[in-house]
Amino acid sequence: MDIYFSPLACSMASRIALYEAGATACFREVDPKTKLLEDGSSYLEVYALGLVPAIRTEQGDLITENAAVLQYIAERYPDADLQPVPGLERTQMQQWLCFIGTELHKGLFALLFDRKLPADTKAQALQKAESRFAYVAEHLAFREFFLSRFSVADAYLFAVLNWHIATPVDLKRWPVLADYYARLKERPSISRALREEHALYAAEQARHKAA
Amino acid sequence: MDIYFSPLACSMASRIALYEAGATACFREVDPKTKLLEDGSSYLEVYALGLVPAIRTEQGDLITENAAVLQYIAERYPDADLQPVPGLERTQMQQWLCFIGTELHKGLFALLFDRKLPADTKAQALQKAESRFAYVAEHLAFREFFLSRFSVADAYLFAVLNWHIATPVDLKRWPVLADYYARLKERPSISRALREEHALYAAEQARHKAA
Repeated sequence: MDIYFSPLACSMASRIALYEAGATACFREVDPKTKLLEDGSSYLEVYALGLVPAIRTEQGDLITENAAVLQYIAERYPDADLQPVPGLERTQMQQWLCFIGTELHKGLFALLFDRKLPADTKAQALQKAESRFAYVAEHLAFREFFLSRFSVADAYLFAVLNWHIATPVDLKRWPVLADYYARLKERPSISRALREEHALYAAEQARHKAA
Repeated sequence: MDIYFSPLACSMASRIALYEAGATACFREVDPKTKLLEDGSSYLEVYALGLVPAIRTEQGDLITENAAVLQYIAERYPDADLQPVPGLERTQMQQWLCFIGTELHKGLFALLFDRKLPADTKAQALQKAESRFAYVAEHLAFREFFLSRFSVADAYLFAVLNWHIATPVDLKRWPVLADYYARLKERPSISRALREEHALYAAEQARHKAA
């Protein structure tokens, strides 16, 4: 399996899921600026929109979009128990994947990271996100994970919350979220993913500076 | 089953799915402005964020987020064949649900509909969406539906494309999408949903005007 990612992007959730599963995969780094892969070829030839993550399965199919990629990994490695069995909890996992993708990732962080957007658009997105963070915090109070055990929804939330470091989002305002983030950071799959992607991110920044 | 919706919102996809399944459900209208239900009670008591759609299942559980609600309906009424069996096609359906939700719904239309956002933010969103529409159009060329047959992903795309009427999005620029939209509009479940929700939307607008 080939997995296309950019360091510290939302694709880090897929890396976490793969490490949880003890799966071997070929990690293909996509430069978010140039859309080039390490071998100099263009990622746009793989996926025209250039978004990560994407997976090239062993059968040769390309799977894109975080929620689908994460559920594919959970399905592909059932022994890792990365998603609940079909039923209410599975539905709830799909609900959280969708919520993180739309309300937090696209509705907030994607806007904050967009250099071309005006400051008032970002301020408005931050203001709107208050109720979203409070809602997730309320769900996670007295819970270790989104569901009864760790699932790919937690991997996705961690990857997204990790962006608070580079944005004005102040996690400390929601102590439940700050605790959740700190706790998950110590999880072996996550601390390894974070360490590796931080190093790759630093190298990417150095490359951009040199260019 | 109770389904919470607002006329012509993305919740129309759930109505289409329910009509496809020939299911009976109690449709509870949420005024998008006041967040009040028809009986005068507040929808915020049901779902603190006030977003539609949401489903109250026969077992009393609340399910939110379009992708989860649609997959729940497909699961609940298996005879309607609203989603492929687990495997590659199911993954592809999840991919399209996620794509529509993040790239088209949140990444474009949610910004266009937000009255507080500046014009240049909307212009930039429209510009970015060009490649997204082209990507969907490329997939749908020579295909009747997203997958080998009608699925909840089509219900969602139709509900989102329907917003072109109220925005500067010009579907005719992607003839494949204009054809798809026109074709699906004739589908009995969709023409019925559209007719009913148009009437409810007109009544909602009249109420707002009178208030």
